[in-house]
Parts: sequence; C-alpha cells; structure tokens
Amino acid sequence: MAVFAERLAEVQRRMRASGAGALIVGPGDNLRYLTGWSEDGHERFLALVLPASGEPALVVPVMNAAQSRGNPAGISHVIGWADDEGWQPAVMTLLARYMSAGAALAVNEELQSVHLLGLQQAFPGSPCRTSCQLIGPLRAVKSAEEVALLRRSAAAADAVYRDTLPALGRGVSETEVQERIAALFRAHGAEEHFALVCFGANAALPHHRSGSARLAEGDIVVLDIGCRLAGYWSDITRTVAFVRPPEGAEQDYRLVREAHMAARQAARPGIPCERVDAAARGVIERAGCGPLFLHRTGHGIGISCHEEPYIVRGNDERLAPGMAFSDEPGVYREGQYGVRIESILVVTDDGAEDLNAPAPDELERVGA
Amino acid sequence: MAVFAERLAEVQRRMRASGAGALIVGPGDNLRYLTGWSEDGHERFLALVLPASGEPALVVPVMNAAQSRGNPAGISHVIGWADDEGWQPAVMTLLARYMSAGAALAVNEELQSVHLLGLQQAFPGSPCRTSCQLIGPLRAVKSAEEVALLRRSAAAADAVYRDTLPALGRGVSETEVQERIAALFRAHGAEEHFALVCFGANAALPHHRSGSARLAEGDIVVLDIGCRLAGYWSDITRTVAFVRPPEGAEQDYRLVREAHMAARQAARPGIPCERVDAAARGVIERAGCGPLFLHRTGHGIGISCHEEPYIVRGNDERLAPGMAFSDEPGVYREGQYGVRIESILVVTDDGAEDLNAPAPDELERVGA
Repeated sequence: MAVFAERLAEVQRRMRASGAGALIVGPGDNLRYLTGWSEDGHERFLALVLPASGEPALVVPVMNAAQSRGNPAGISHVIGWADDEGWQPAVMTLLARYMSAGAALAVNEELQSVHLLGLQQAFPGSPCRTSCQLIGPLRAVKSAEEVALLRRSAAAADAVYRDTLPALGRGVSETEVQERIAALFRAHGAEEHFALVCFGANAALPHHRSGSARLAEGDIVVLDIGCRLAGYWSDITRTVAFVRPPEGAEQDYRLVREAHMAARQAARPGIPCERVDAAARGVIERAGCGPLFLHRTGHGIGISCHEEPYIVRGNDERLAPGMAFSDEPGVYREGQYGVRIESILVVTDDGAEDLNAPAPDELERVGA
Repeated sequence: MAVFAERLAEVQRRMRASGAGALIVGPGDNLRYLTGWSEDGHERFLALVLPASGEPALVVPVMNAAQSRGNPAGISHVIGWADDEGWQPAVMTLLARYMSAGAALAVNEELQSVHLLGLQQAFPGSPCRTSCQLIGPLRAVKSAEEVALLRRSAAAADAVYRDTLPALGRGVSETEVQERIAALFRAHGAEEHFALVCFGANAALPHHRSGSARLAEGDIVVLDIGCRLAGYWSDITRTVAFVRPPEGAEQDYRLVREAHMAARQAARPGIPCERVDAAARGVIERAGCGPLFLHRTGHGIGISCHEEPYIVRGNDERLAPGMAFSDEPGVYREGQYGVRIESILVVTDDGAEDLNAPAPDELERVGA
C-alpha cells in the first residue's frame, strides 16, 4: 500500500508543477501501476480520477464497484455509475471540483477516444494532454524489486526458448510451435504471453503473425517470445537456421549481433537514448544495410511490454540506473529472410547488464 | 472484396451526409469490419484513413507495411511511417487534403487518446467526433452470412458449456474450471475466448474474475463464457446449483428466467431497444428486486463481443431484422450468490430467435 501512496503522491506533485487540475487513468498498466488494480471496462468508462491535490477516486461501472473496493492502494472513494445513467454525471460532478479555470486535464495515452471526447465536451475550455510526463518517467526507472521481477521473467523466456528448439522439426507449422510455446509459458506460471514464430520469408516481417507455414531445410527461424510473470514482462528474440542457413544469413547474423553488442556497449547512465540507437544503427549502416533495419533499436519494458524509454532517434532523454529496455536490431530481406537478436538490458551505475542468456556468437543451426 | 467495398462506400455516403471530412479507424473490430484486416499497433499509430470521397489509405508502421498490403479489402494505398520520423507527418499530409474548413474529423471510439490529441493539435479548428453514427448502424444489422456465423459460434459455446458441467466437482477451483473451458474452446477452433467462473458469493459479482475459490455444496455456480469463432462472438451465461441450492436461489432463478423470456417476447422489429430492457426489468422490479439487477439487459454482438445495439434505458433506437444482442438479466445478492441467464437473440421479421439452447425452466442441480 505504501508503494502506491508514494507513486500517487509523486504524480500529484508533478501535476501541480505542470498545471494539471486532474488526471484520468483508464484501464491498463498505468492504472495497475498507481493502484495495483485494473479491470477491463470494455466500452464502459472505468478510471482513476486523481486531483492535483486531495483524495483519489475510482469511477467504475456499478457492477465492478464491489471488486474495485479491494484495490491494493486502499482507495476508498469508489463511485459506481449505472448503465442507464451513463458515466458522465458522476465524472463531471467530481471533475468540476478540480478543474479551475486554466487547469489542464491529463489522460492516460490509451484512454479510449470516446471517453476523451466526452470529457472535452464537458470541459471545453480546458487544455487536454496525455499523462506521459506525469507517469512515464516514474515507470521508466525500476526499483531493485522490479529489476528482480524482470530478471525472473527473463529467465522464464530464456527457458521457454531453450525448450522450444527441440520442436523445430521438418514440416512443423508456425502455429504448432506457437502452441508449444504457449504451453511452456503456462507451465512457468505466466499470466500472459506472446510468440511470433517466423519461418523463411516470414522472418523478413518484423511483426509477422504465426501461420500455416511449415519448416523446411534452409529456412531461417525467428522466435520473438515473452511473457508477463508476476506482473513483469520479458521479451527476447533469437534467430537460428534450420539444418543449413540460406546464403548471406550467417553474415547478416554477425552484423546484427555486432549491432546488438554495440548498443549494449553504448548504454550507460547519462547517455541519451538516441545515442544507443545510433550505436546499433551505425554498425548496420556502415555495412550498407541501413534501409533493411526497419525499426527503432528498442523499447522500455516493465509492467508493459512496451513503455518508456524508447531507444529511437529523436529521443534525447538520458539513461539512468534502473532503466530497462530491449536491445533488438534486425536486418530484413523481403521475400527471403530476416535476422533479429533481442535481449533486455538494465542500466547499472556504470553500464548496462543483460538480463538474458547471451545470444550465440554465430548463427546457430538446429535440426541438423 | 466486394463486401468491403460496399461497406466503405456506405460509410463514405454517411460521412458526406454528416459533414465529416475524414475518418480515422485505428486497430480493432471497426478496422476489421471495413478492411478485413487489423493489426495491433501497440503504442504505434496504425489506421485506415478514409476521406468522405476518394481513395482510402492505410497508414501503418513501416514494419507492418508488407503485411498490410495483403488486406482483403484490396486497399493498395499503404503508407508506412518510420519510428524515427513518427506517424504525424504522413497522417497530416494526407488529412490536409480532406479537411476543408468546417469539416469534422471522425475517429473510432477505441482510438488511443494519444493519437486523437495529436490529430486535434494538427487540426485545431476541426470538430472531432466518434465514428459511432458512421459505422455502428451498419454493424448492428447482420447479413444472413453473419447470422450463420453467430449461430455457429453460439453452438460452440453451448457445447463447451455442456462439456464443462462434468468438471463441477467438490473442491475444484474456479481457475481449474476456467482452464478446462479454455481447452474446450481451443478444441472447437476458437480464435479467442473468455470464461467467468463464479462460485458462491462470487456469483454476486457480475464481472467476477475467476480465482482460487473452491466449489462446495450449496454453492451457486455462474458460468459466463463465449468465444470468437470464424470472426464472430458467442456469449452465454448459465446458473446452476452445486448439489443443493442456497435458500432463495430457486425463486430468484425463476424470476430471472421470467425476465429473460419477457425480453425475448418483447423483441421484434420496430420496438425501441429500451422497451426490451424495460420488459426484463419490469419483471424483476415488480418482484421488488429492481436494485439487485445491476446492469443493462443486453449488448449487441457480432465481430465484437459488445457492440450496438445496447439494450438499455435511454436507447430509443428501434430494432430491425438482423440485429443480434444478448438477453441477460440477473439478480445479485452481495455476499450470498447471484443468478444470471444469457442467450443471444437475433431479430427476425416478426420477433426474435434464440441462437442458443434454451436455459432450463428451473434451477438445475449438478454434482448431486
């Protein structure tokens, strides 16, 4: 309970400093971070309403009211609204107390537009903005307890990856491998998981959806897997060749691994995020493959799989001890294959530590 | 492809009639409805940009561009944006063509606020509204093909329910039953599913999350389950007693069943949605239990589990043949038990048809 009180107080301090009168935090990880509780409201409005000063409230569908009272943050002010009254009267009455002239209204990034538009209609004179400056910087820096949980989640992903390799047999389909990964993550106690299984030319699609493709000799296999375990995410990518690699893949693997290591070397406190991206990207660009690296080098990770800090050109935010993010350069040759290597780094006092087992130096062959 | 072209043309007709210059449809079921394709952009902007007249475009992260080109609607104008440039330049350039002075910008209800706020910043003079009047009415009325798919999904939910009952044994936990349901739905080929398993006092929580509670004699069991099969959802709720019912539960069951039947009797073309709600609610209110019925009587169902039409007081929209919705009254006695009965109705030319196997007349006992 103390940890939630501290987080709420820090957000309120930032709200006062930035002129936000109230903050609306709908379902999702920000709500979970601030209250220890969240619930999917689906189309119904469900949110924490936090004033810049004073008591927080939960505004929820009346049928969620009983559950929400058990929130770990101990927020006792719970307002349930009925389907035939709608959410607006309850929220507007509450907000009217906090939204003095000129005060801004902050909302979590993921809040549904239908709810934001309703709020804007009720407070047409109030500037609206996202909560990213209020909550993002807090979440970006992990406590020792949080790093321990990220480590545990990373270990589960490493183990699942290792136990998946024997499933890579001739003719197996991407979805069959995906099902095995799902079963393995469930056995580890994961609350959620994902698994992108990409064979051959599908590996050239960074966000391929696993499908009916069947494994054949000469295929590259990209496995991008992770889970939420005790509330914290893991996310790793490994690339292997089935029996024998396609032409050029070994060279691409070495290049991507070099970029991956360059990002880790660059990461330390005080360095801007974009510098880490530039370190990885520079390696790939110098090899003439810049246009084949289709995405940023990484994303923060914690109670969301993607969160601040984003490791991308244009982000001059500086790294600090406790920040955790993915290091995942890739090279994608459309119609042929792709290579990506991803591990999770945590910034230490003087560098960065890899939470995952290291990726092999050379492109590994399986099924041979 | 023809069905998507028709849908897009109808939405554009409605846009012109309502003064919307452009429509943004982010990830989710509306995008799926209009293009046959969707992809989770996570924090990245990914949307259909539809002008009131002219060619639709997909604006997606560059790493999703290759996949999105395969969209079943055959939309060939795909714009990929790079992480280090952001989504705004591409979207704003495109929108500037369509957003003449005074034109409104429509967005899908679920679009993330961070993206809506970015759009509002770029077009400060344009009123923003949701797309609910543009797409909702189309989706609410199902074609014969869609009703056939809803029927197939309903049959799967009925079968899974029937095959779940033998798992209700002394001492089994809610999550164990939930896992069995998950396995059964997977065996039916469901793409997604949900299962609320509620024992005893947990059945008094309409949206209880299945947990560690273990089944004991005298418990009410509420099972609220459904799946997405071939793109269409099912959603049923059944209530049984384990070995023997708690006091009052048989009476409550009869009351809820009477309300459930009253809604079905009321449903026919031309009747306002709220009249169906009033029919069910009236039964429960006349028995003095009105305050125990914590939610609306139902929600539309189709490619979303919850969609228009909502069966709730204040909704004077009239039913039409092809509309599909849940009929799910309930009575909730906090700390004791709850009863809910839910089936899916489809409005016919002269009434409404139940897609599910009928709920028993009397509270069923299992495990005896």
